[in-house]
Amino acid sequence: MSTRRDFLNLTAAAAAAGTLAGPARAQAPGQAPSLAPASGPGHPIPPSGGDMLRLVTFVPAAGKEPRLGAVRGDGRVVDLSGIALPGVDAARMVSLIEAGPKALDAVRRAVAAGDGPQVETVRLLAPIPAPTRNVYAVGWNYLEHFAEGQAARGTNVEYPAHPVFFTKGVNTVNGPYDPIPYDPEVSTAIDWEVELAIVIGAEGKNIKEADAMKHVFGYSVINDTTARDMQIKLHGGQWFKGKSLDGHGPIGPWIVPASDLDPNDLHLLTRVNGVVKQDASTKQMYFKVPRIIAELSRGLTLVPGDIIATGTPPGVGNGRKPPEFLKPGDVMETEIVGLGTLRNVIQAVPA
Amino acid sequence: MSTRRDFLNLTAAAAAAGTLAGPARAQAPGQAPSLAPASGPGHPIPPSGGDMLRLVTFVPAAGKEPRLGAVRGDGRVVDLSGIALPGVDAARMVSLIEAGPKALDAVRRAVAAGDGPQVETVRLLAPIPAPTRNVYAVGWNYLEHFAEGQAARGTNVEYPAHPVFFTKGVNTVNGPYDPIPYDPEVSTAIDWEVELAIVIGAEGKNIKEADAMKHVFGYSVINDTTARDMQIKLHGGQWFKGKSLDGHGPIGPWIVPASDLDPNDLHLLTRVNGVVKQDASTKQMYFKVPRIIAELSRGLTLVPGDIIATGTPPGVGNGRKPPEFLKPGDVMETEIVGLGTLRNVIQAVPA
Repeated sequence: MSTRRDFLNLTAAAAAAGTLAGPARAQAPGQAPSLAPASGPGHPIPPSGGDMLRLVTFVPAAGKEPRLGAVRGDGRVVDLSGIALPGVDAARMVSLIEAGPKALDAVRRAVAAGDGPQVETVRLLAPIPAPTRNVYAVGWNYLEHFAEGQAARGTNVEYPAHPVFFTKGVNTVNGPYDPIPYDPEVSTAIDWEVELAIVIGAEGKNIKEADAMKHVFGYSVINDTTARDMQIKLHGGQWFKGKSLDGHGPIGPWIVPASDLDPNDLHLLTRVNGVVKQDASTKQMYFKVPRIIAELSRGLTLVPGDIIATGTPPGVGNGRKPPEFLKPGDVMETEIVGLGTLRNVIQAVPA
Repeated sequence: MSTRRDFLNLTAAAAAAGTLAGPARAQAPGQAPSLAPASGPGHPIPPSGGDMLRLVTFVPAAGKEPRLGAVRGDGRVVDLSGIALPGVDAARMVSLIEAGPKALDAVRRAVAAGDGPQVETVRLLAPIPAPTRNVYAVGWNYLEHFAEGQAARGTNVEYPAHPVFFTKGVNTVNGPYDPIPYDPEVSTAIDWEVELAIVIGAEGKNIKEADAMKHVFGYSVINDTTARDMQIKLHGGQWFKGKSLDGHGPIGPWIVPASDLDPNDLHLLTRVNGVVKQDASTKQMYFKVPRIIAELSRGLTLVPGDIIATGTPPGVGNGRKPPEFLKPGDVMETEIVGLGTLRNVIQAVPA
């Protein structure tokens, strides 16, 4: 354990000094210039949770182009760019989503038969690195989180009868192990929010609750990282800006298809420097996945690859007494047990 | 005038009956199946305002691919897809924006020397039909509009010291003369909001006010059409959903480069069925263009092609006594004098 802690400290120090620009540089001294090894910040964490399909967008080695892959239960990454998948652009996750169940079956066969490097040796990007519209997000979807924010809000709002929707800018999308920029000129109240992310598979509008699950392609982990001061005080009560700083939405490490995972009782955790801050279950979600999709799609067409962050449980920094916020060098881990873990270092931007 | 009124009524009736799917069908009986002529709903309105450059994305005839063009002061549309513009994808406005001033100079020369059909005979799309991120929008940027909404809000919010930002979904982007879907199951409180739209030219983050104008490519007209019931009551006070119904953001008819237009005293108007509802000047904007860009870009990278709606003046339906909202068949005209006019029919969706 001390070795890992030393590594974390080293990397955190490097981050604080502004020397980390991405995972390729997040290496302890003495490491080879390959992306191997270890599971410090910047390096993928091998999967747990068995034989589900884990779809990734990855860079096999520095200088190579991003491509689609699948991470097996044994931690091997199968490169999908070498597999014939009609209609699929091997660099674009959304094209695989659009290709439907037959393409996914072909991927499953290839993954079972294939092989590849250990996931710790590659770079994982966000599964959908450049969505074509903002990330949809639900606010106040855990009653205890709604309650913990009331003091800070200073208003006594009634719990809404419908989900609260806002968006996170496309610029927030960040890799599962990439640093999160920290600029004290912009905000000194950066907070964590573990959330289950829904990835939409089939286009739809005015989707009925009973049909909603047919529109889900799969799930991922997102941290709806938030500049709490901006969100609450700076912009008239609209959350968009405080939710949309560059890189403040790490997501991944992969997408697990809906058939492989039940979203209704998943264990969610946030750890900061190893200390558990959020610890809950998706069964506490007030509005469940079908209701969220039904409400969001009223008059609004959802398209394949759309991402919906489903709200965060209690335990955010702003709800603590005294409030706690992230600072440069902190390691934020965002986990949904069995689905996957993000690990992001808070990194001061160059002055 | 009576001829035009008859045409409007006819088209409005067709719209109410749900028979209008797009401008190609918005023709009075007896019209040839070409897109000509007249300036009823669905048909482009010729420009006024002199020799500024007006960049459009247009379809020259049914079945043809969209392409870039420029509408001259005499109403002729010059097709830019036939002109050699290094680095420019002739179907993608953002590529022209990214290509910089030299490409724009080449366009100006081509427009001066070129020729083409009258604008009324082509179909104009939104100048950027598919942005890669949501449309940024500023709320409460005219003090009188902030005041007129207070009764409906039921709260006595202090005027914010910083601009209020929210987003409109990419799905709201609609053509300047296309119908706006109306579904009473979703909302019966559809309201108008004329706004000046900024189009970003050069990427930037933490842009200083003094430098902000260097990041502006140009301007356009947008109607931040709003489902007022959803915006205010349904989703916990977050505006995104009520601002983001499909097609509820007509924009255009063109982009005028910043060098050709002073944004500081433009006359904005909304007319519903010919009756003036909003009538103001951009000089009443509380936060001016440079301040908006500076605040929005704090910690958030703006990219070429980003659209920012700068807020609406007083006169919205919700601020009237009694409140007024749009209904199927209504013709909403959104004008910034000298810049351009949108004309959209409110159209009931098929049951």
